[in-house]
Amino acid sequence: MKIAVIGAGAVGSFYGARLARSGHDVRLLMRRDLEAVRRNGLTIKSCDGDFHLQAAAFGDPADIGVVDLVICALKATAIDVAQQLVRPCVGPHTRIIVLINGLGIEERFGQWFDPERILGGLAFVCINRGKPGVVHHMAYGRIAFGHLLDDQEEASKMAALFARAGFETHVRPSLRQARWEKLMWNIPFSTLAITAGGVTTDRILADPGLTRLARALIVETGSAGNADGCSIEIGAMVEKMMANTGTMGAYRPSMLLDYENKLPLEVEAILGEPVRRAAALNVSVPTIEAQYRLTAFLDRLNRGG
Amino acid sequence: MKIAVIGAGAVGSFYGARLARSGHDVRLLMRRDLEAVRRNGLTIKSCDGDFHLQAAAFGDPADIGVVDLVICALKATAIDVAQQLVRPCVGPHTRIIVLINGLGIEERFGQWFDPERILGGLAFVCINRGKPGVVHHMAYGRIAFGHLLDDQEEASKMAALFARAGFETHVRPSLRQARWEKLMWNIPFSTLAITAGGVTTDRILADPGLTRLARALIVETGSAGNADGCSIEIGAMVEKMMANTGTMGAYRPSMLLDYENKLPLEVEAILGEPVRRAAALNVSVPTIEAQYRLTAFLDRLNRGG
Repeated sequence: MKIAVIGAGAVGSFYGARLARSGHDVRLLMRRDLEAVRRNGLTIKSCDGDFHLQAAAFGDPADIGVVDLVICALKATAIDVAQQLVRPCVGPHTRIIVLINGLGIEERFGQWFDPERILGGLAFVCINRGKPGVVHHMAYGRIAFGHLLDDQEEASKMAALFARAGFETHVRPSLRQARWEKLMWNIPFSTLAITAGGVTTDRILADPGLTRLARALIVETGSAGNADGCSIEIGAMVEKMMANTGTMGAYRPSMLLDYENKLPLEVEAILGEPVRRAAALNVSVPTIEAQYRLTAFLDRLNRGG
Repeated sequence: MKIAVIGAGAVGSFYGARLARSGHDVRLLMRRDLEAVRRNGLTIKSCDGDFHLQAAAFGDPADIGVVDLVICALKATAIDVAQQLVRPCVGPHTRIIVLINGLGIEERFGQWFDPERILGGLAFVCINRGKPGVVHHMAYGRIAFGHLLDDQEEASKMAALFARAGFETHVRPSLRQARWEKLMWNIPFSTLAITAGGVTTDRILADPGLTRLARALIVETGSAGNADGCSIEIGAMVEKMMANTGTMGAYRPSMLLDYENKLPLEVEAILGEPVRRAAALNVSVPTIEAQYRLTAFLDRLNRGG
């Protein structure tokens, strides 16, 4: 299968490299790492075993051309250029997996392209970029799929493709619920890592006050999700999120890495859109709102704004 | 009148110096500035006119002895040593004004000393310490008094004393309400200055998201105060707090100065006690709680904890 990874940062490169290793023709659209990967290939330093790949790296999606599958792994902050970067790779039969955090992203893709062909992928993976051409994969890797119109056959086909590349996969009957549930990790842990002064997740769990705040954020997120048509078991999810995070050690969420590198944060996709959706549904999310306003301000302050 | 200022930092030194200038025998208990004031006296660089005073500075309250009036202007973080510092100055007729931010402080004094003789003072003043022996007074200076048992005659006598030293004074029929109303400034502005990354109050007002958060904090504080027996007109107070802050320019709240100097913050008096009181009264204060947990953590992080 011909696959284009649009936005091959840590996550896109990792999944793309594993799909290439399982026999697919994978083409990576890169910016920062383009020259390094062309020169030296792509190295995945992985808890599942390191490997190296002479990857096909591109700087322009027009040079990739039409593919069978687009994996769009841009950052949510790049959503405004997503359409133009993806468009050259889309033909009449191309499917698109959106591997971008946050709410409402697949809906945007559904306005630009045929909604029947849009899927969402939710990667549960501890990963970050090393020096150019190197990705560090510390833990996990499982990936869940949902379809924009909740077509489970489509989601199952996509899961099978990733399963053949060695990943644990899941099919989610409701993409919307999957997105809200993922926010039940990102909203507490990615954003407290910023507002608590730039700390790893273990510091959050070690502080009773921040732990309390994390739990409140998880509960508010789940409540908003349920008001948005989901059926989330909030209490069970709180315990699951806390327990999972406990296994991660001194983990730096990608939002914290972006903050440390003075890159724009995915504030609107992770916090702004949930707050707006909750407001439209008349659900009170004051703790999320506080995180939203503080994180948005700190993001601008951090970049000299 | 013989007056002891216990904890003569910026606020204590400023009010003490003005009382001395109006003819009272004022004795300042100092730590950081003791040697400088003994050598060079105390200089008040004031928007009302600079002045200099050969102040009586002490390092031990036993050397001050019993006075007619104790002004206790320690930081709330020093509350655990307040009793032992104040005790040597208290005789059978000594009155005590507590000039300390936060909830529940006068109640502590009422457990240690005769509650009939305990008053609270609320200083509305933009002030900070300069180099040793120098206090910078930028704006305001008015001071409101209430009595622990709401004895208005006692509060009025104290107000008269300060009025003769040239201050605008107010008598508050309810000390508790006065404390809650003062928190309606400190909770939004002192603590957002910390959690928004260490910024002056004008930056908070210039950001629509932080302004929204400030308003939410004021409303939650007023609601908790009213549940605690006050009759605060919350809407009017929101507008008053925002308008007053607008006149302050690039103001650094004392909590921000402490943060920048890596000193312990008055987290429990300003945030912890209100959160606990609201919880006891079954009032929801999620935005204050978020500020509490974040500020408490940032305080410890800032001091290497």
